Amino acid sequence: MATLEDLGVSAFINIVSGFAFLLLFAVLRIQPVNDRVYNPKWYLNGSRTRSMAQGISKFVNLNIWTYFTFLNWIPGALRMSEAEIIKHAGLDSAVYLRIYILGLKIFVPISLLALMILVPVNVSGGTLLNLKKEVVFSDIDKLSISNVSPGSQRFFVHLLMAYIFTLWTCYMLYKEYNNVAFMRLHFMASQQRRVDQFTVVVTNVPNVVGHSTAETVDEFFRRNHPDHYLTQQPVYNANKFGKLIKRKERLQNWLDYYQRKFERHPGRRPTTKVGFLGCCGRRVDAIDYYQGRIDALNRKILAERQRVLKDPKAIMPVSFVSFDSRWGAAVCAQTQQSKNPTRWLTEWAPEPRDVYWQNLAIPFFTLSIRRLLISISVFALIFFYMIPIAFVQSLANLEGLEKVAPFLKPVIEIKVIKAFLQGFLPGLALKIFLFILPDVLVLMSKVEGYISLSSIERKGATKYYYFILVNVFLGSIITGTAFEQLYSFLHQPPEQIPRTIGVSIPMKATFFMTYIMVDGWSGIANEILRVKPLVIFHLKNLFLVKTERDREKAMDPGSIGLPENLPNLQLYFLLGLVYAVVTPILLPFILVFFAFAFLVYRHQIINVYNQEYESAAAFWPFVQSRIIIGLLISQILLLGLLSTKRAANSTPLLIFLPVFTIWFHYYCKKRFEPAFRKYPLEEAMEKDILDKASEPNFNLKTYLADAYLHPIFHEFECDEEMGEVTASKSEYGQESPYRCESVPSPSPPHYVYHYEFEP
Amino acid sequence: MATLEDLGVSAFINIVSGFAFLLLFAVLRIQPVNDRVYNPKWYLNGSRTRSMAQGISKFVNLNIWTYFTFLNWIPGALRMSEAEIIKHAGLDSAVYLRIYILGLKIFVPISLLALMILVPVNVSGGTLLNLKKEVVFSDIDKLSISNVSPGSQRFFVHLLMAYIFTLWTCYMLYKEYNNVAFMRLHFMASQQRRVDQFTVVVTNVPNVVGHSTAETVDEFFRRNHPDHYLTQQPVYNANKFGKLIKRKERLQNWLDYYQRKFERHPGRRPTTKVGFLGCCGRRVDAIDYYQGRIDALNRKILAERQRVLKDPKAIMPVSFVSFDSRWGAAVCAQTQQSKNPTRWLTEWAPEPRDVYWQNLAIPFFTLSIRRLLISISVFALIFFYMIPIAFVQSLANLEGLEKVAPFLKPVIEIKVIKAFLQGFLPGLALKIFLFILPDVLVLMSKVEGYISLSSIERKGATKYYYFILVNVFLGSIITGTAFEQLYSFLHQPPEQIPRTIGVSIPMKATFFMTYIMVDGWSGIANEILRVKPLVIFHLKNLFLVKTERDREKAMDPGSIGLPENLPNLQLYFLLGLVYAVVTPILLPFILVFFAFAFLVYRHQIINVYNQEYESAAAFWPFVQSRIIIGLLISQILLLGLLSTKRAANSTPLLIFLPVFTIWFHYYCKKRFEPAFRKYPLEEAMEKDILDKASEPNFNLKTYLADAYLHPIFHEFECDEEMGEVTASKSEYGQESPYRCESVPSPSPPHYVYHYEFEP
Repeated sequence: MATLEDLGVSAFINIVSGFAFLLLFAVLRIQPVNDRVYNPKWYLNGSRTRSMAQGISKFVNLNIWTYFTFLNWIPGALRMSEAEIIKHAGLDSAVYLRIYILGLKIFVPISLLALMILVPVNVSGGTLLNLKKEVVFSDIDKLSISNVSPGSQRFFVHLLMAYIFTLWTCYMLYKEYNNVAFMRLHFMASQQRRVDQFTVVVTNVPNVVGHSTAETVDEFFRRNHPDHYLTQQPVYNANKFGKLIKRKERLQNWLDYYQRKFERHPGRRPTTKVGFLGCCGRRVDAIDYYQGRIDALNRKILAERQRVLKDPKAIMPVSFVSFDSRWGAAVCAQTQQSKNPTRWLTEWAPEPRDVYWQNLAIPFFTLSIRRLLISISVFALIFFYMIPIAFVQSLANLEGLEKVAPFLKPVIEIKVIKAFLQGFLPGLALKIFLFILPDVLVLMSKVEGYISLSSIERKGATKYYYFILVNVFLGSIITGTAFEQLYSFLHQPPEQIPRTIGVSIPMKATFFMTYIMVDGWSGIANEILRVKPLVIFHLKNLFLVKTERDREKAMDPGSIGLPENLPNLQLYFLLGLVYAVVTPILLPFILVFFAFAFLVYRHQIINVYNQEYESAAAFWPFVQSRIIIGLLISQILLLGLLSTKRAANSTPLLIFLPVFTIWFHYYCKKRFEPAFRKYPLEEAMEKDILDKASEPNFNLKTYLADAYLHPIFHEFECDEEMGEVTASKSEYGQESPYRCESVPSPSPPHYVYHYEFEP
Repeated sequence: MATLEDLGVSAFINIVSGFAFLLLFAVLRIQPVNDRVYNPKWYLNGSRTRSMAQGISKFVNLNIWTYFTFLNWIPGALRMSEAEIIKHAGLDSAVYLRIYILGLKIFVPISLLALMILVPVNVSGGTLLNLKKEVVFSDIDKLSISNVSPGSQRFFVHLLMAYIFTLWTCYMLYKEYNNVAFMRLHFMASQQRRVDQFTVVVTNVPNVVGHSTAETVDEFFRRNHPDHYLTQQPVYNANKFGKLIKRKERLQNWLDYYQRKFERHPGRRPTTKVGFLGCCGRRVDAIDYYQGRIDALNRKILAERQRVLKDPKAIMPVSFVSFDSRWGAAVCAQTQQSKNPTRWLTEWAPEPRDVYWQNLAIPFFTLSIRRLLISISVFALIFFYMIPIAFVQSLANLEGLEKVAPFLKPVIEIKVIKAFLQGFLPGLALKIFLFILPDVLVLMSKVEGYISLSSIERKGATKYYYFILVNVFLGSIITGTAFEQLYSFLHQPPEQIPRTIGVSIPMKATFFMTYIMVDGWSGIANEILRVKPLVIFHLKNLFLVKTERDREKAMDPGSIGLPENLPNLQLYFLLGLVYAVVTPILLPFILVFFAFAFLVYRHQIINVYNQEYESAAAFWPFVQSRIIIGLLISQILLLGLLSTKRAANSTPLLIFLPVFTIWFHYYCKKRFEPAFRKYPLEEAMEKDILDKASEPNFNLKTYLADAYLHPIFHEFECDEEMGEVTASKSEYGQESPYRCESVPSPSPPHYVYHYEFEP
């Protein structure tokens, strides 16, 4: 076990390296050449375009003064108010930041109380001081509950603290849930008219012989919502069409490239070869060649588009149904439509950016099978992931490498390299696995069939949380693979389990402190430095970027990354709650993490991340329930720990805590969750009346006409050359002629706010 | 352990006593004096009134011939078709009978298969035959899985059977859920206009200063449901009023009694004393005296009624809100109304008979606290009920009795009586407890705050089911109190628990066979004999009945008794599923139970039970999920049992069964449960259109006007003398003058069907 000094050294190293990262960030950030890496958000919302500087200053910052103010991103990050952040980056981002603030609100008072009361109680408990010298205890343990002698009356102080901490946490959770629910409703109420407020997605439309899906939908809603039904938008199976569009884009890039080349050297028309990768075959004029290919492709696209729009088989049994009022949509989304509960399923339409188009047409039964299979897979992944990794590791040894690539043998046999490889190779499979895990889990959620990106990310986060809980939290405490844990859990009395874990808890405090520093502090510093996007951007710039359009694409603003960050964050809540009573000295580490991460993510949200969708804080119920899980785990482990400390009379006193916590959870769920799942009619009616009063003649039908057209059709739409393609859609009851210039383009809403901000 | 012969004797006794009961029933049933005990249903629906026979034949059946056809109730019970039963006794009763049929459908093929395949496999397994003679095994065990030697390949037959039984059970469950859901929708669709189709109960109406509740409700629904809102009915706090009405009823009874007395002896006016119980005080003319007291009370009632209707404090923050169409009501019931999810909670109104008036005004927070407290109490009741009973038992011993009543000492000291009391007294507390338990659990559900009788009964049944599961099923297998079980479960590895139970399962087969005969067979025979209502009816007739009105009241038709019968029934499903693979010889006993109980309950439903409310089979999802629980328990126990039989390779094969079962449960839940929770708009719209076409001028407002008036007001209403009281209610927006004769009295709907049926 580590002494206080060891820990101090570790903290020192981490703080220094953190500062080094920050310094590096400060230097890199102000180089114009990196501007698209560190400020992509401003490019995306249009307030910055190409740098106008010329020569060397286009790439390197020569203004010495700016190097001295390298920490000015911190006040910059704090200057924006919450309301401005909501405008600038959406409610999701603003509420995400509130999680860190919630962490501080919960843990600052708890830390103060714990350090002022529990640490003195523990230190003066003094069992460990009296023990024989041979047993070496760490200094940390003297500050923790381990130092209190078994059967001591002092445990009542710990008990009291457990009660205070639980009540305080619940109080803060309640207040915050209340706040967030209010913010959500306020956000939805104060917003401009949005297409998703009027629209409901209908899945599992039955197939009526002799009717097209569009007709069936139309008829059904005309009959059952006669007063409010307005229009509907069929969903097309546009996979092939999408492929063609992608191919066209590639060709267009090449054409741009050669045209620029020609502009720079007007005398010589560029040429290319027609064969594989332009390396072989006949040499032709490049611009003419690509122009010709694009024209041919355009004709193909046109034909495919006609086919998709006309072929009844290309229409999927799904539809976006719009109503003439928010009230009508709210009613349809919340009620059951059909006698057969597997048909005509209605749900709020996600906003157009948020729709995951591929999943719209999964039938009810398939969906249920998919959920079953994915649940089994996730269970297997969490508990048995070590099996395939061990298998890969057994393959990826040096002998294997030598067999596959004998020419490497002389190199591998060099001692230094061999040692390095032997240390590195076995861990590689595990590292790659952990690196891609969040993406794999998101992919699994996609397979599960959720129809919006936001819900896919939330479900991915849930899965990752359980993985972390079992493999990081429990795995570190019990030290063993999840499978071994499962085995031992099955072979231990349930009453024994919290004891086994509870006893190990204080011993693992130093491990988790180091974990918080390495994974938390350094992770955050790495987040602000954006090493990966930085490297990739410059690599792309060097090798791939041919045109300005490519550079636009090479810019990778990223997003908050809920599926990965939310579970990590929740782990810190769990650690804080578990150690608050046991080893309070761990709490300051968590406080530093929350404060630092808050600053960094605030900066990133303002300057970097691209908002991919707006779910209006739909993830908050998950945040709440994970913290509740943390609270429950901490209470049960404390119960186990105290029962080994011969403080047996504490059990009846502690048992009320989990009961209270569970009740609190259900109370909050009933009290606040409807605000995240449903849309109150009162609200809808209010906004409807307001709208009608302010714009009595607004043509909602035109506004909604193409809101939920598959995005690739939109792109196609706005391609000027193809203006003539677009006449064939009025058959679905839409009056507006389907032309690019007449579409009011409500989707995807770009939320362009011109906000002045000094980088 | 019992031998086959022991069991045969037990079966013989039970069958004989069952037949004795049936014979007794046949004799008692045809006596006119018992007609109100055995055929109350026909009195209730008005097809029978007072017997017209005179003299002795008014009491005793002298027609010898009818004594020979004593079993003719069986064809009588079978003659009515299901559709007729639905008309005669409601859908609840018809669907309740289907549970028995479901039992037969599931277990007849399983029994055949198990007896034909498993029993030969078990018998030829022959371990027990080879064991030493000292260990005495019962003959039953030779037919069970215990007879197969550990590690035998024969277990694969059992495995295969477990799969077949699970699949068959799930298939039948799916079909039946489908049927019942269809029946429910069909029932609701084919029904006449019903007030609850148009009405929604709104709870937690906020208190707006300066507005009465009625005004607040009116304003809110006028604003948020402008197109469909019709009217509303406030709920009054009528507790005091109810008491006065009850007192008046008692006086009215006495008045009736003395008037009859006077009619019989017209010469002598009856007198009474005014003091305590008519025993002391001044002697007065009885008729005048009671007439005077009733008049005085009437004035009081009138004043109280005026107060209730006028005092804004007497109006509770609850309202029955009616709409002009089923569509409007369906929308309101299924959507969230207010931004604050704890306000304006809407729910389908139960039908007027089904409303539990006392619970309507419980606020949201109190409700949540009540649920918490009741959950804790139920848990305590299930696991610790032996503690208070043991305490009472320790008091209720002979010494205690002698102390309290010393004069009994000589009697108690008589040896025979002492022995009897010593055997009887300790068990008495337990027996009383078990007897009143279902009522206690229903009372607990009332405290939990459900607003309809049907949901209270369902929740009571749920609690009783868990009690039976823990204390009867597990309690009999592990033999120990639930508390001891809990303790041992906490101290055993989870993996060990199914083993411990699984191993005991085959050994308890004979116990459960006896249990099925005693509790099941004899219980059913007792049910048809109606010993308790018979005795109580005649006792009341002897001592209490003064008037015909009293005799009407002395008649206790009872009801199906869901809170008690449903859990018992589900226990038999559990036993059947658990023993199907283990000891198939138990199955015929269950088959007999299902068949016999089906006949008896069919007879009782037709002739005896009073239908208190109609929930349209709302209990079916509970039936389904309890059978699923039984299936899961049977699979887990089989897993445990086989793992002790060194058939370890069976575990991976068996683990898929519970996974499949859980998935099946969720699939069915999603597929069918909405039919029991929601009301599809398609359906509502269809019926609305039909209604409008057939009766375009129907005045719905008048029809709904007093549908949800507190029932005691109704009673009061129709009291002719008070016709003039009723003018003061039009202030709540109801046009119809509030008079008894003008009220179309839709509530409680009496469902009077004149169906010819030979008793």
